[in-house]
Amino acid sequence: MIAHAGTTDARLESWVAVVPGCDFPIQNLPFGVFSTEERAPRIGVAIGEKILDLNRVAEAGLCDDVCEPELLQAPVLNPFLAAGRLVWSGVRERLSQLLRRDGDPTLRDAGADRFLVDRHGAGVRMHVPMEIGDYVDFFSSLEHATNLGRIFRPNAEALMPNWRWIPIAYHGRSSTIVIDGTPVRRPRGQRKAPTDDAPEFGPSRRLDIELEMGFVTGPGNGLGEPIPAAEAREHVFGLVLVNDWSARDIQAWEYQPLGPFLGKSFATTISPWIVTLDALEPFRVEGPRQEPAPLAYLRVGEPWAYEIRLAVDLQTDRMREAELPPATISQTTFRDMYWNVAQQLAHATANGAVARPGDLFASGTISGSAPGTQGSLIELCWNGERPIALPNGETRRFLEDGDEVTLRGWCDRPGARRIGFGAAHGRIASAI
Amino acid sequence: MIAHAGTTDARLESWVAVVPGCDFPIQNLPFGVFSTEERAPRIGVAIGEKILDLNRVAEAGLCDDVCEPELLQAPVLNPFLAAGRLVWSGVRERLSQLLRRDGDPTLRDAGADRFLVDRHGAGVRMHVPMEIGDYVDFFSSLEHATNLGRIFRPNAEALMPNWRWIPIAYHGRSSTIVIDGTPVRRPRGQRKAPTDDAPEFGPSRRLDIELEMGFVTGPGNGLGEPIPAAEAREHVFGLVLVNDWSARDIQAWEYQPLGPFLGKSFATTISPWIVTLDALEPFRVEGPRQEPAPLAYLRVGEPWAYEIRLAVDLQTDRMREAELPPATISQTTFRDMYWNVAQQLAHATANGAVARPGDLFASGTISGSAPGTQGSLIELCWNGERPIALPNGETRRFLEDGDEVTLRGWCDRPGARRIGFGAAHGRIASAI
Repeated sequence: MIAHAGTTDARLESWVAVVPGCDFPIQNLPFGVFSTEERAPRIGVAIGEKILDLNRVAEAGLCDDVCEPELLQAPVLNPFLAAGRLVWSGVRERLSQLLRRDGDPTLRDAGADRFLVDRHGAGVRMHVPMEIGDYVDFFSSLEHATNLGRIFRPNAEALMPNWRWIPIAYHGRSSTIVIDGTPVRRPRGQRKAPTDDAPEFGPSRRLDIELEMGFVTGPGNGLGEPIPAAEAREHVFGLVLVNDWSARDIQAWEYQPLGPFLGKSFATTISPWIVTLDALEPFRVEGPRQEPAPLAYLRVGEPWAYEIRLAVDLQTDRMREAELPPATISQTTFRDMYWNVAQQLAHATANGAVARPGDLFASGTISGSAPGTQGSLIELCWNGERPIALPNGETRRFLEDGDEVTLRGWCDRPGARRIGFGAAHGRIASAI
Repeated sequence: MIAHAGTTDARLESWVAVVPGCDFPIQNLPFGVFSTEERAPRIGVAIGEKILDLNRVAEAGLCDDVCEPELLQAPVLNPFLAAGRLVWSGVRERLSQLLRRDGDPTLRDAGADRFLVDRHGAGVRMHVPMEIGDYVDFFSSLEHATNLGRIFRPNAEALMPNWRWIPIAYHGRSSTIVIDGTPVRRPRGQRKAPTDDAPEFGPSRRLDIELEMGFVTGPGNGLGEPIPAAEAREHVFGLVLVNDWSARDIQAWEYQPLGPFLGKSFATTISPWIVTLDALEPFRVEGPRQEPAPLAYLRVGEPWAYEIRLAVDLQTDRMREAELPPATISQTTFRDMYWNVAQQLAHATANGAVARPGDLFASGTISGSAPGTQGSLIELCWNGERPIALPNGETRRFLEDGDEVTLRGWCDRPGARRIGFGAAHGRIASAI
């Protein structure tokens, strides 16, 4: 189904320098939107420590036979996303040819400086790479759903009866999806402990993270025309890291009966580079066994899990002052998610709802079962009962002002070149 | 606060013909987006049986001193919405002057045919008038929340403990907001009766309506900067009718713990004309007493309820064949909603979440306490127990294929000129 296995060949090397351990070798070629002091937001592809400016590549006519140049000259990815898999893979193949040693020398010969920008250069900024029409957040980790059930509803069955039948989800707020590095202001809201007579309004005291992956959709469907699970690959462009910041005290008081609202809608951070399904192909694996068997519209005929390793790093103000590096507080994998991307998209459109180019569908918190593999503080610290100990003697139950959280993700297995997602980081600013 | 009381003066008459009972006298001047066979979508204002083409008005320079002409020449209202109340009211005042008898004769003298289009003309189509970034649906009727609690959770307290403290809401799907007249395809989804062992997938058998009003926002706020309730008037442009179509069987099985998703996301119908707060000013009244007193961030210093009368009409295929007119199955008022528009906007942004120009915030189902004043079939028929009898002997518990539902809304009181919202109608198409 996914062509161009050649673009993921571990032996490929680029003439652009790629240091060992870099997230962006030529096998990756993730898409994003960047700006510089001189250049307005435009589409780019990360390669080593550089960004390849696709606006200029299109201007030079280097992709004309695989893609309308306007699609690569937009300030957001939406028109390119709307073009579909044949165009996505065609551009990827072309860029791989232009960037590889012993490939097409046109770009290199044309003067690479015209096309390449330093990723870490002064004034280089990354932007949310697409206009996000709707943002859906799933709840697809069995371990996370079980843990949250135990914490929020201690006297009931941890897993709801619908959970093994439905990839449960809700709509989040697309206006507050922010790019890696955007400060996250501690939200104010209504909090009420079960023992309080009345709620009070103030800064959240239980500010948390949620480690997630999200997929970005391509062409989309017409109103009333579901996307079958078997066609999901034509509609999913790629994946990003997602931090679904959560205010647990606001969430606990507000969420019945209509679900999370202000406990989530204050900020959602995504990583700037969309790693394509094409690049992830060497890391596609069988997912967990599903019992009971999913209903027909949720059945998939091929593996849809991805072996993506994930980590959460935390650095406090005091650690920063002491020049201590961030501490890794969780390590887990995306591979074991119960509901997969194809099932999520088929479910979200099963009623005829429209997915548009650039929509974001996040996985829900990714948690494993072993200690230290959970994707949220409320699970890692079990609702505050077991604080995390940091290297400088500090402890954390929830986030304090000044804390900086970084999500990282990467794929690595024998025989394939390591590729990465970069990072989604954010630092907590105090409430106004 | 709202200037230009002159524009709502009941004595004003337009030189454009307005038949008695018309929703759109010169006191109304609602904004929408229309197209004709010759003209691409553009902004218009309804007056009598005509649409005033604001693209042409701006082209002729007739609003230049109150509004940048580009704002009125866009294919959607978003740029105009972003401009804020001073511009909105300035344009309204100018249009009122241009359209009234004994007003500014410029438009009339310039040849009204150039500026006016027949609302019911062949090829005239209305469009969703703005790009909707985020769609929020509240749950602000005390009677509706109580009724649904009784139906969905018969063994628990009907009203959740948070309900009188929080204007409860969730995010809906903006991609499936459709304009008046769009057919609504019966959604398919997972259904499971409590007595069934496993769910099955198929067309919804409990398709319902929700009679709501929605408000459209203007300038909006920055990330992390809540809109105080006292400033809501600067951010709310106007109101539309909203039918939040609901598949009760899908909703009942999916909604725990994260709230409604596919039971709602298949379609939401809005009326095409946004009636401005300026036009509604004569119908602004005190809302119901709130007990307990709202927390400080939800307090408002002025009346924020609107006396808007509402009706739901139903016409079945068999009624249509027999040439029977639609039957009115519910009549209610917007006035008694427990949480008001200012409180809803203040709450939705209290955590710093961003409201953008063109966002839609719906009220939640509007239900009264008397029989026949509820805004959904599940309440009117009490979960199917008391079917509605139609004039031709048919009965309804939920919607059948071919049923056409029309929401209507209007304001009428002694001393003011009656204004209306037009209609939000949709007919049920069978599942694919």
